[in-house]
Amino acid sequence: MTSPSRGCTIWFTGLSGAGKSTITEQLVPLLKSRGCKVEVLDGDVVRTNLSKGLGFSKEDRDINIRRIGFVCHLLSRNGVIAIAAAISPYKNLRDENRALIKDFVEVYVKVSLETCIQRDVKGLYKKALAGEIKEFTGVSDPYEAPDHPEVICETEKETPQESALKIVHKLEELGYVARRTDDGVHPKSDAKFSFNEAARV
Amino acid sequence: MTSPSRGCTIWFTGLSGAGKSTITEQLVPLLKSRGCKVEVLDGDVVRTNLSKGLGFSKEDRDINIRRIGFVCHLLSRNGVIAIAAAISPYKNLRDENRALIKDFVEVYVKVSLETCIQRDVKGLYKKALAGEIKEFTGVSDPYEAPDHPEVICETEKETPQESALKIVHKLEELGYVARRTDDGVHPKSDAKFSFNEAARV
Repeated sequence: MTSPSRGCTIWFTGLSGAGKSTITEQLVPLLKSRGCKVEVLDGDVVRTNLSKGLGFSKEDRDINIRRIGFVCHLLSRNGVIAIAAAISPYKNLRDENRALIKDFVEVYVKVSLETCIQRDVKGLYKKALAGEIKEFTGVSDPYEAPDHPEVICETEKETPQESALKIVHKLEELGYVARRTDDGVHPKSDAKFSFNEAARV
Repeated sequence: MTSPSRGCTIWFTGLSGAGKSTITEQLVPLLKSRGCKVEVLDGDVVRTNLSKGLGFSKEDRDINIRRIGFVCHLLSRNGVIAIAAAISPYKNLRDENRALIKDFVEVYVKVSLETCIQRDVKGLYKKALAGEIKEFTGVSDPYEAPDHPEVICETEKETPQESALKIVHKLEELGYVARRTDDGVHPKSDAKFSFNEAARV
């Protein structure tokens, strides 16, 4: 088996509805078309398979993020590009995973809270603002933006495809993915941000 | 990156003190010397990184074994030989993981309860028999042996090295590892069963 990539972890962070999953949907085929091995650990996958029963307290969120980090670590040291697409609101936990994994590419999906509230595809913000959901990141629970992420995706200004390409180019720059010149061709290039994430991770 | 192996999961099952970890210690260098990518998920690793807070009730054991299975699944479908070295006492959960993972090699580490009680390196059986540890597999909690494991290691009759070689030969037979003829050379070939497992998994 050969792979044109080195393993690493792409660690998304951003508010619910920021666009983490939508960018991931664009990113995965781009990486696969370059022959990379890719695994996605998004909020749903993780809450089902690793963290059932955990809530959204600081302590439970920390455990959840540590588990995702552990699995990303195992994958990326074996040549896989692991994508963690959870809110991961706390800086210290992201930094802990960065220290563990080393091959760590932090992607800040930057968007204003107002835009997330406006998008609110799943109606979670409405419920959170009405007090029906406790510990909701950005509303009743803190979100700590990263100081020095490797990539910033501004989903109010970019298309999902542009965001995904930004990440690919950073991976090339960092030596995780071989450079390619035919970036004009992409599957699903007409996608819009759809915010179909269930994630309150 | 190239690897001479196909990914699979080696799923150990057997009583505490049967010799799962000792065989694993012999097995890992054998596989690595053949260029395989290997990850070990033993009781300690898992209880620390995936299942902190879980107890030893049927329900908690099931959750734990499912999580190990999920991680083994991710690893082995990416070309890694994942080794799960937990007691995993329940047949239905092992079968569930077999169905999920498919490339699944079940290794039954077979030994009598009497021998485990006699070995009792960590003194756990003594405590369990005295009623100081609840839900202890083989004493106060059931152990269900597999009907058709791919490999049976009888650690009352074999050395750890013989057990490990048996597994390697089965992996060759099943096409997960390329055949080699120089099996006489092994690191740590003088090892005895040392039963250093903390595992009550």
